[in-house]
Amino acid sequence: MSDAVYVQGTGMTRFDRTPNRRVPDLGAEAVFSALDDAGLSIADIQAVYCGNIMEAGQTPGQRIMQQVGQTGVPVVNVTNACATGATALREAWAAIRAGLHDVCLAVGVEKMGAGLLGWGEPETIHTEGLLGSDLMPALFAHAGSVHSARYGTSFEQFARVAVKNHQHAVHNPLARYRKETPLEEVMNAEMIAYPLTKLMCSVNVDGAAAAVLVSARKARELGMSRSVRIRASALTSDPYSERNLTMPDFDTCTTNAANQAYEMAGVGPRDLDLIELHDCFATAELMHYENLGLCPRGEAGRLIDDGDTWAGGRIPVNLSGGLLSKGHPIGATGIANIHELTLHLRGEAGARQQAGARLGLAHVIGLGSCCAIHILEAPNK
Amino acid sequence: MSDAVYVQGTGMTRFDRTPNRRVPDLGAEAVFSALDDAGLSIADIQAVYCGNIMEAGQTPGQRIMQQVGQTGVPVVNVTNACATGATALREAWAAIRAGLHDVCLAVGVEKMGAGLLGWGEPETIHTEGLLGSDLMPALFAHAGSVHSARYGTSFEQFARVAVKNHQHAVHNPLARYRKETPLEEVMNAEMIAYPLTKLMCSVNVDGAAAAVLVSARKARELGMSRSVRIRASALTSDPYSERNLTMPDFDTCTTNAANQAYEMAGVGPRDLDLIELHDCFATAELMHYENLGLCPRGEAGRLIDDGDTWAGGRIPVNLSGGLLSKGHPIGATGIANIHELTLHLRGEAGARQQAGARLGLAHVIGLGSCCAIHILEAPNK
Repeated sequence: MSDAVYVQGTGMTRFDRTPNRRVPDLGAEAVFSALDDAGLSIADIQAVYCGNIMEAGQTPGQRIMQQVGQTGVPVVNVTNACATGATALREAWAAIRAGLHDVCLAVGVEKMGAGLLGWGEPETIHTEGLLGSDLMPALFAHAGSVHSARYGTSFEQFARVAVKNHQHAVHNPLARYRKETPLEEVMNAEMIAYPLTKLMCSVNVDGAAAAVLVSARKARELGMSRSVRIRASALTSDPYSERNLTMPDFDTCTTNAANQAYEMAGVGPRDLDLIELHDCFATAELMHYENLGLCPRGEAGRLIDDGDTWAGGRIPVNLSGGLLSKGHPIGATGIANIHELTLHLRGEAGARQQAGARLGLAHVIGLGSCCAIHILEAPNK
Repeated sequence: MSDAVYVQGTGMTRFDRTPNRRVPDLGAEAVFSALDDAGLSIADIQAVYCGNIMEAGQTPGQRIMQQVGQTGVPVVNVTNACATGATALREAWAAIRAGLHDVCLAVGVEKMGAGLLGWGEPETIHTEGLLGSDLMPALFAHAGSVHSARYGTSFEQFARVAVKNHQHAVHNPLARYRKETPLEEVMNAEMIAYPLTKLMCSVNVDGAAAAVLVSARKARELGMSRSVRIRASALTSDPYSERNLTMPDFDTCTTNAANQAYEMAGVGPRDLDLIELHDCFATAELMHYENLGLCPRGEAGRLIDDGDTWAGGRIPVNLSGGLLSKGHPIGATGIANIHELTLHLRGEAGARQQAGARLGLAHVIGLGSCCAIHILEAPNK
């Protein structure tokens, strides 16, 4: 056994409303794209790890593989709230580490349908937060308000996160929205739960993403030049304590996962060249700057003001457009992050390429439940 | 890394209708029971793999662990139709093989609620098949009829499977039904889909089962005397082919998994001392005698007639009472099988003990999707 596991190929569908496409349609498109990218064929797939929530009871992975045309192999279906895709990826990674297979497929897919957990309406744009009293926007609005009270973080600073991510998405042909959105527009959009306006909530879309993972042996066989190494995979669940019996603690959950991932990879936040993190709401992105150690507690607002996390900045965050503009098909999101990092680490990200990217971090949280972090490293040229 | 992974402790709830107990209640009871059995404490759990279908979108594993009192650790939620529990077990096994942890918990749980896939009614006894036109009973009735036409297998032989499993369950204090059920009663019960009467269909119940898996290092630390080794874990999905594009092929799916498991364990069907297999319907049990290689094709009826698979026979099948009498809470079933084997392999199965059991096989299928097989070996005394 070698501990080294590589991302050999990735692919994703355009994130969009697709009322006429089923889960197997979307999943298969992403799988074919990832296989093409990996230079591997359908028959090379030895095992499948599928992340999907809405149809979890109906063996979504098997239905995708029937459409792909590779059946009979082990298929494991995984759910973990918004970390579902990342958890499927981790299980594929573990299977290769365990020496069970040389080529594993991780695929994440979601038809958001009538929206998740009752707070979304698929027929309207940016409507995840339309019901401000619902759990998700309320929770992240609250977290933002606490941050404001403690550190003076302003409404404008939160809004600027949405401006940044919409601007980034302009260069991502697979993003749901590709339209610059000025600060005034973000701040004047319908208020969902202060300080979150409609444009500061993630976008309900359908979509799929896939990644082909290979063992060190297989990567060598394929020449290594496009093999992106998984330097760390960390998964935590929410820590409940006497102090914290009821509210999900996504801060500690992320901090714990980040510490584990940095230790496993032997790197720190200053070594990273880009990050895809879980901007389910604009407030969350700022919290995670601090949770991931990009800045001391309370200074996230300064990072967005100073341009550090914008394209061209010190440590760009969500160059894909993030959940706020690319979209958030929950089962797919964790693997779409891996797709984005892989493009940059190979120098294949086109107009949004982060120059000279060597190390990237992908972060997702499933609210009330878990955080998954992966750190990826560029191929040696 | 050592390939060896051991079952150190198991536990399960009584399988029953439990309208006032939630998924976390049932799950936590099984977890505490498995920890007691393993001689380990809550804090020893390093990672959790949870199998549950009905609440898969609501992070059931995390909710169980909040109730157990061990939070913060990695939790992965898994679904795979009726192989859900067995797949969770396999993922825990793979994580230990991968060197990620020394102590992993696999827990499976299901509140059957209004029944799965629309064919069950929880308020009535043995009602899974009440709607004979529904997919599951119809499919297994068809498979039985084909077997009858080809090999002359009789209605009486199928019915005898239900007689056997109800008789076995008398000695299992955790089974839903513990009542001898004579052949006439089985044959004269309401006809669901010929040749399946109501008493030849699996029982809709709520329940949970858990298993604590440990690495070789941890097993040695604990003395090995109660450590049951996992000699094989095999997972397959349904093979679709040009000949077979629409109907699930649970025969080939099981045959493939059995061949892989026998090869991994370096044993054959004649080496087994007992089997827990997926008797979702009485016809299925006879099919699986042949699929698992217990007898040549067409001779399953003779096995049940000659007493080979009854308690005290050559190769007892479903000493727990099986899905037909113990019950079938789908997320829990795969791990309940492991609990049953573990009791026998340690000589702790009480009145239903299979004398001198050294090697046991656990089999589940998820219809239209997958088969999981595990082979377990008794501790060296």
